[in-house]
Amino acid sequence: MPSKAIPMKTIERLSLYRRILRELQAKGDEFIFSYQLAALTSGKAAQVRRDLMFLDILANPQKGYSITELITCINNLLDKKETQKMGIVGAGNMGRAFINFFKGRGRNLEIVAAFDIDKKKTNRVINGCRTYPLEKIQEIVKTLNITIGIITVPENDAQDVAELLIKAGIRAIINVAPVPIKSPATVHVENLDLTSFFEKTAYYAKMNTKPHTIDEA
Amino acid sequence: MPSKAIPMKTIERLSLYRRILRELQAKGDEFIFSYQLAALTSGKAAQVRRDLMFLDILANPQKGYSITELITCINNLLDKKETQKMGIVGAGNMGRAFINFFKGRGRNLEIVAAFDIDKKKTNRVINGCRTYPLEKIQEIVKTLNITIGIITVPENDAQDVAELLIKAGIRAIINVAPVPIKSPATVHVENLDLTSFFEKTAYYAKMNTKPHTIDEA
Repeated sequence: MPSKAIPMKTIERLSLYRRILRELQAKGDEFIFSYQLAALTSGKAAQVRRDLMFLDILANPQKGYSITELITCINNLLDKKETQKMGIVGAGNMGRAFINFFKGRGRNLEIVAAFDIDKKKTNRVINGCRTYPLEKIQEIVKTLNITIGIITVPENDAQDVAELLIKAGIRAIINVAPVPIKSPATVHVENLDLTSFFEKTAYYAKMNTKPHTIDEA
Repeated sequence: MPSKAIPMKTIERLSLYRRILRELQAKGDEFIFSYQLAALTSGKAAQVRRDLMFLDILANPQKGYSITELITCINNLLDKKETQKMGIVGAGNMGRAFINFFKGRGRNLEIVAAFDIDKKKTNRVINGCRTYPLEKIQEIVKTLNITIGIITVPENDAQDVAELLIKAGIRAIINVAPVPIKSPATVHVENLDLTSFFEKTAYYAKMNTKPHTIDEA
């Protein structure tokens, strides 16, 4: 494990590279150059090379990087040995969409429980994922060893739910509610801010232009 | 409208500032300092000030920025005069989640049509949004003046669907399929890469640390 801090954008791109590399591996490809990986991910070769410097891997000057070796290195960096368990709070449409999105896709990430205050939505099974009443959250997070909480509740309940999750011992939170969440220094919160995401896209649609390219670390 | 290119991250943050400012306005607040807005959005005051430099607004040294004026300036920058219409391809769980997410929330963004190849999902109305068979896409995009396409189909169909949308005259695409999409220079593609997003969060949960802060433009 390299000791220097890895930029968030690099972590994101390594995840994308891995998906592309797995597809190539499935097709029987064995080697790849950084410029090829850049083209497949709509990135720049220099950026790909900078990202791969965080892995313990060297390219063969004639053939490029070994695809199998690259995948192993990314696995070692990103994944925990055991599958990380996620719990979702809010079993509405968004919650269901995430449960379905991860079903059969995640190799090392799994949504194992959903929580809701609405009794009509609890004590059911959504695509293999059991739903519990919200008051069970402490117990279930501990019993199932859930380390990541996903918040898809309305914005007014988001901070309260975050505090329940933190109290239950969660290590990271994915917040889909359209409001920023406060957390202690030990709990990482990642905001999936759909409104900003959509409004940004609408801005570029309005301007009828691609965004000015900025090299983000 | 300022002529200099505005960084994508600034556009995203302006959208977030606007939501926070609208809440403050609803509570009766009239003025705000940049450091206060920074605290409310978990950002830094210097960054907020840099972002607001793209707006045509000056702060009052004693009272800070007028909240009403800030909102108006952000509206002028981000919004089109008329509501921008969005069409979603894929009327599954994720498609429904987005339709519900935007219902009653968007002031200037609206999902007006959904398309699917599955006949069981078409010619219905999901929370006010009509679903059409995929072959109607050219006709409906033009008739309803849809400028933004949202792709929530399986990855193997994503590029084909993107090409249909581009042919129909769309100006920007939001791609939720877990695969990069190619587009001509005039059509902006924004990838909502959920897998990378979740894997990144899992990485920080595994490391049990907050990410190294990098000042992104």
